[in-house]
Amino acid sequence: MNFSIVLKYLGYFLIVEGLFLLPSMFVSVIYSETNTIFSFLISIALCIIVGFLFQFFTKKAETTLRIKESFAIAGLGWIIISLFGALPFWISKEIPSYLDAWFETVSGFTTTGSSILTDVESLSKGLLFWRSFTHWLGGMGVLVFLLTLVKSKRGEGYSLHLLRAESPGPQVEKLLPKTRDSARITYLLYIGLSIINLLFLLAGKMPLLDAFCIMFGTAGTGGFGIKNSSLADYSTYLQTVTTIFMALFGVNFSIYFLLVSKQWKEALKDEELRLYIGIMLSAIALCALPLIINGSMGILNAIHHSAFTVSSIMTTTGYATVDFDQWTQFAKTVLLVIMIFGAMAGSTGGGIKTSRIIIVIKSIKAQIYKLLHPRSVKYVTMNGKPLDSIIINRTFLYLSIYAIILIFSVLLVSLDNFSMETTLSAVLSCLNNIGPGLDAVGPTSNFSVFSNFSKLILSFDMLLGRLELLPLIVLLIPSTWRN
Amino acid sequence: MNFSIVLKYLGYFLIVEGLFLLPSMFVSVIYSETNTIFSFLISIALCIIVGFLFQFFTKKAETTLRIKESFAIAGLGWIIISLFGALPFWISKEIPSYLDAWFETVSGFTTTGSSILTDVESLSKGLLFWRSFTHWLGGMGVLVFLLTLVKSKRGEGYSLHLLRAESPGPQVEKLLPKTRDSARITYLLYIGLSIINLLFLLAGKMPLLDAFCIMFGTAGTGGFGIKNSSLADYSTYLQTVTTIFMALFGVNFSIYFLLVSKQWKEALKDEELRLYIGIMLSAIALCALPLIINGSMGILNAIHHSAFTVSSIMTTTGYATVDFDQWTQFAKTVLLVIMIFGAMAGSTGGGIKTSRIIIVIKSIKAQIYKLLHPRSVKYVTMNGKPLDSIIINRTFLYLSIYAIILIFSVLLVSLDNFSMETTLSAVLSCLNNIGPGLDAVGPTSNFSVFSNFSKLILSFDMLLGRLELLPLIVLLIPSTWRN
Repeated sequence: MNFSIVLKYLGYFLIVEGLFLLPSMFVSVIYSETNTIFSFLISIALCIIVGFLFQFFTKKAETTLRIKESFAIAGLGWIIISLFGALPFWISKEIPSYLDAWFETVSGFTTTGSSILTDVESLSKGLLFWRSFTHWLGGMGVLVFLLTLVKSKRGEGYSLHLLRAESPGPQVEKLLPKTRDSARITYLLYIGLSIINLLFLLAGKMPLLDAFCIMFGTAGTGGFGIKNSSLADYSTYLQTVTTIFMALFGVNFSIYFLLVSKQWKEALKDEELRLYIGIMLSAIALCALPLIINGSMGILNAIHHSAFTVSSIMTTTGYATVDFDQWTQFAKTVLLVIMIFGAMAGSTGGGIKTSRIIIVIKSIKAQIYKLLHPRSVKYVTMNGKPLDSIIINRTFLYLSIYAIILIFSVLLVSLDNFSMETTLSAVLSCLNNIGPGLDAVGPTSNFSVFSNFSKLILSFDMLLGRLELLPLIVLLIPSTWRN
Repeated sequence: MNFSIVLKYLGYFLIVEGLFLLPSMFVSVIYSETNTIFSFLISIALCIIVGFLFQFFTKKAETTLRIKESFAIAGLGWIIISLFGALPFWISKEIPSYLDAWFETVSGFTTTGSSILTDVESLSKGLLFWRSFTHWLGGMGVLVFLLTLVKSKRGEGYSLHLLRAESPGPQVEKLLPKTRDSARITYLLYIGLSIINLLFLLAGKMPLLDAFCIMFGTAGTGGFGIKNSSLADYSTYLQTVTTIFMALFGVNFSIYFLLVSKQWKEALKDEELRLYIGIMLSAIALCALPLIINGSMGILNAIHHSAFTVSSIMTTTGYATVDFDQWTQFAKTVLLVIMIFGAMAGSTGGGIKTSRIIIVIKSIKAQIYKLLHPRSVKYVTMNGKPLDSIIINRTFLYLSIYAIILIFSVLLVSLDNFSMETTLSAVLSCLNNIGPGLDAVGPTSNFSVFSNFSKLILSFDMLLGRLELLPLIVLLIPSTWRN
C-alpha cells in the first residue's frame, strides 16, 4: 500500500469539500444565521487546513493507482468527507451529538435520507441546504466528481479503478474511450437533468430554497426533505413532477447518453430499462389495488400516491406523501422487495440494481439448462452480448457479501429489542440507501429511537451500500495495509 | 421424457407406501380404534391398487434413468406419496379438510413438523404414529429408501441421480464405490442410531408409543410431538437426551461412517463438523445470555432450555420445551439466523446446510484475493481437497433460487395480513423444514391461522426445501415434458 498517494488524495477531497461548503454558508448569510455562519467558517477552515497538511506531509508520489489503493481511497475518502461534513451540524450545536451529526452526514452523502432529527424544520436554512446538497454531491460518486474538478492535467488510467469503486452496478461501461471524458459526460447529463428538474419545480411555484433542496434530494435519490411532512404538503403537481424525476434519476445514465447521441433504438431495447419499468409498473399496481379495494382512497388518488411511493422507494429516494406504514402487509412487503431490488446500475439510486437481477435470473436459467443437458454450451447474454464470467462471479460475490452483512446487521440492531419489522426495514433501508423503513422507523418517524451502537452499525451499512461493499471490506483485510 | 419409466417408479413408491401404513394400522388395532383402522384399510387398498395400475399400464422400459427423469421422479414422487399419505387423516375425518391433511403429511414427510392441528392430543393413536412415522421415512430420503427395499436385482447407475436429487447438501459423496452399497450403509447407520435413541428414551421411562413417536421426530429432525406442549412436560433427562440426539442427527452421516471404520482423525478434522459445532455452541451462548441477564431463569435452566431450543431449531427439528417467542428480539433473531443456516449436509436436517456456508465464505475470500491480486491463482478447498467449480456454481445457483423463492413466498403469504415476523418466520420455517416460527406461528401456536392459499404456498415451500429446490423447479420447465 502506497500511503503517500492515499493521503494525497484524501487531502484533495478535504480541500474541495471546504469549497463546497461555501454555497451553504452563503445561504446562511442571506438568512443572517450568525451562529451557523460561524460554524461553517470553522468547518471550512478545518477542511482546508487538514487537507493541506495531508498534502504537505506526502512525497511527490506520482505513481498510478493500483486496485488496492483505489479501494482504500474510496473507502477512506467516503469516511473522511463524512467526518468533516458533520462538523457544521455539531459546531453549531444544532445536532448536539457528534455521532448523530455523522449519521446524518453519512445518510446525506450516501443518498440514504434516513434522519435522526425529530424536527427538521427547526434546523437553520444554511444547514438544511448543506444537508440536501450532500445528497446531490453523493449521488453521482462524490470522489470522482471532486477529482474531475481538481486535477485537469492528469491522463487517464488512475481514475478508472476509483470510478469503478464508487460507481453503482456490476459493470462500469465507459461511454467514451477515455475514462475522464466518460465521467465528464455523465456529470454534464446529471447537471442538465438537475436543472430541468429545478425549473419544473419552480414552474409549480415552489419557493426557491425548497426547490433547490427537493431537487438535490431527487437528483441524488437521497430523500432528505425540509419539512417534517416530507412532500405531503406540496401540491399534486409538485408531487407528480417529483414522481417522474425520481424515476428518471433511477435510470442508467448511459441510456441518456444513447438518447442524446440519437441512438433511440438501442436505448429502448435495453433489457435493464425494460425490467426496471416493468417492475415499477407492477409494484405501482400491486400497491394501488389494496388501497382501491379498501376504499381508503379514490382510484386516481390511490394511483397517484402508489406511483409516488413506489418511485420513491424503488429508486431508493425515500420521499413520502402518505404514511405507507399504514398500508396492508402485502403492500408493505412489496415495498420491502423493491427496496432490495433498487434502481438501475449507473444511476444515482441504490439497492441491488436491476442489472444484477437480470444476471442472476439468466445465470439460473443457463445453469438449469446445463444441468439437464450436460454436454451443451450456453452463454449468458445481456443486450445480445455475452457476459464475461468475471462479471457473473462478481455479481454472486456481491450478493453473498450483501446477505452476510444483512444478517449480521439485523442481529446487532435487534439488540435494541424493536419489532422484527422495525429492525429488518431499518437495516434494509440503510443498506440500500433508501431512507424511511416501516413500523418504528416508518415515513412519519425517524431513526432517533435507536441506540448509539445501532446508529453506528446503520451508518456503516449506509456506506457499505453506497460503495457496494468491497471498498470498505478491503479496508478490513490486513494485507491491504502492508507496504 | 420417458413417461413409462416415471410412472413405473411412482407405482413402486405407492405400493411400498401401502405396506408402510401397516404398522400404524397395527397401533390402531392395539388401541381398538375402529374408525381409524377402517380409514387405514381403505388408504392401503388405494395405494396398492393405484400402484399396480401404474405398473400395469407401462411398458417394460428397462432404460437407465437420465437426470431429467430422476428429477421428475423425485419431484412427482414426493408429491404423490404426500397425496396418498394424507388419506388416512382425511378418510377418518380426524382432519376434515383434505388440504389440511395434505399440509400435515407434507410437513411430515419433509420432516418440517409444522402442524395445522390445534389439539394434537385428540388425534387417534394410530394416526399419531403414522404422522410421526412419516418424519422417520422422510428423514433419509424416502424414495431411495423405498427403492433399496424393493429392487434388489438392479445394478447401480440408475439411482445415483435420484440419490442426488433427494439428498441434502451441495455434494453427494459416495461412501463406498457402489451407490447401492453407500445407500445401504447410510440406512444401517440411520436405523442403528434411531434404535439407540429409542433405548435412551425408554431408559428414562417414557411410554412406548411416546418413545417411538419422539424418536421418529428426532431421527428425521421432524418435530411432530404427540402432546400439545411438545416436549415441555417430559423430564429434564428426556429433554437432555433429545437435545443430544437432535444434534447427532444433524451431523453428516459420512462422519459416522468414518467413526465406524475407525478413521477418527479424519472425522474430527472435518471442517463442516467444526463449523457446525462452533455455530451451535455460539448460538446456545447468545440465547442463554439474555435469559440469564433478564433473570427470567437460573443459569442451569437457561443453558438447558437454550441448548434444547438451539439444537432443535438449528437441526430443523422444531421441538420446544419453552415458548421461545417470549425471548428477546436478539435471541429470536439468532434463532431465525440458525433456521436459515440449518444442519450439516448429508444429515436428516434441513436449511441451507453448513457446508454451503463454508463454500460461500471460502469463495468470497478467494474472489477478494483474486480482485486484489489479479494475476494470482487460488483454489477453494474443503478438507484440504480443491472444490470442483461445478459444486461452487451449484451452491450459488441454489442460494439464488432459495432467495427468489423466499421473496415470492413471503409476498404471497403476506396477503393474509399477519405481522412481518409471523409471515417471514412461517416461510423460513417451512422452506427450511423446521416447524414452528415466531409470533402467530410460535411454538405454542400452529399453522391453522393461515388461509388455504397460504397453506398451499407453505406446503410447496416445504417440498422445495426438502428436495433442495431443483427437482420441483425442473417439473415447471416445459422441455421436461417433451418426449
